Amino acid sequence: MDMEKVNSMDFGEFVDVFGNVVERCPLIAAAVWSQRPFSDLEDLEKHFFAFIDALPQSGQEGILRCHPDLAGRELQRGTLTAESQREQSSAGLTSLSADERLRLAELNAQYRARFGFPFVLAARLSDRAAVPRELARRLHCPPAQELRTALAEVKKIGHLRLADLLGVDPAGPQRPREPGAPDARRDARGPQPGAVRPGLEAVASLERRPHTRVKEGEN
Amino acid sequence: MDMEKVNSMDFGEFVDVFGNVVERCPLIAAAVWSQRPFSDLEDLEKHFFAFIDALPQSGQEGILRCHPDLAGRELQRGTLTAESQREQSSAGLTSLSADERLRLAELNAQYRARFGFPFVLAARLSDRAAVPRELARRLHCPPAQELRTALAEVKKIGHLRLADLLGVDPAGPQRPREPGAPDARRDARGPQPGAVRPGLEAVASLERRPHTRVKEGEN
Repeated sequence: MDMEKVNSMDFGEFVDVFGNVVERCPLIAAAVWSQRPFSDLEDLEKHFFAFIDALPQSGQEGILRCHPDLAGRELQRGTLTAESQREQSSAGLTSLSADERLRLAELNAQYRARFGFPFVLAARLSDRAAVPRELARRLHCPPAQELRTALAEVKKIGHLRLADLLGVDPAGPQRPREPGAPDARRDARGPQPGAVRPGLEAVASLERRPHTRVKEGEN
Repeated sequence: MDMEKVNSMDFGEFVDVFGNVVERCPLIAAAVWSQRPFSDLEDLEKHFFAFIDALPQSGQEGILRCHPDLAGRELQRGTLTAESQREQSSAGLTSLSADERLRLAELNAQYRARFGFPFVLAARLSDRAAVPRELARRLHCPPAQELRTALAEVKKIGHLRLADLLGVDPAGPQRPREPGAPDARRDARGPQPGAVRPGLEAVASLERRPHTRVKEGEN
């Protein structure tokens, strides 16, 4: 999808297409539509991220609370969003052993009790062995730091979802993906040891990029 | 449901129950959970409304854009939320003639083109004759005034949905509804001419009440 197409969408279409860039928060896409036209993926995501950054802390925690647990109840019940289902599957979380599921459920519960929001991680950049390890590590972080880490994960997820929707390589320069080139959407296996994870380089830079704040009444 | 029950909910339960108090914006309920405990309906809705008021204009418009057209495509397709379906049905919008539907569709399209968000109205406080009349009237309001009017309607809808969930009379003092007393949820007919509309007095007062703003990082 090219940016001309994106910029020509009315808000109904835009929210239909981009409403789940931030999990279960179509309000954010619906707000971002006000800021069109967008020049490219980076410009579009800048507006998503600026909206997140401008929210009060309760709202930022609210975004996290709209995310499902990894390998949790919603995966078991089949009520995940399509994007989340694909991401958890890509990390191998849909084929855990009973022991692995139980271990993750215990860690998720501890995390929710400690921070008041669920553990959020860009699952496509992880795998079934790394998820519980990272969860156990982040469980001991100070709450303010953990909120920042979790929001950075929301942005990584959003970056990958936007790249999918626009058909661009999430790691590289913004050009349409070559036919036959690797597509993280279709890679349902976990990453192989030592394999380059698609998008990792691009999303790592997100955490260093300063975000503009949404100014009140800027429209 | 009493407030003790509400205040004992973890965020997952709270978002399940209150996630559609503001149409398709579970993020708002997920943020409001941070502010528990709540003393009563008025206290709870104060937090919902403060969150709405604290958003930048793009976010307030975003909330409106998460609402469906009245008697629009989603009603025809059966994809409305349960709350919205009930409300549109209560106003008689599910049994319009082809001419009435066409007239509303034309007005809705004009409204969306003029303001960049859909026409939002607390349908339970209206009826099939009043909806197009009010739409035609608001179509000519200045945009800044219309944004305020539309957000006041979001609050009326939220007030009625919260009253339903808590089982209290939306118009009266906050006590559980008497068995056999009128329940707007179950009243699928439009209001009779001259009938007192449940909730109208209470929601009218909302527009006069000053709202506190959510302070950044207040949690």
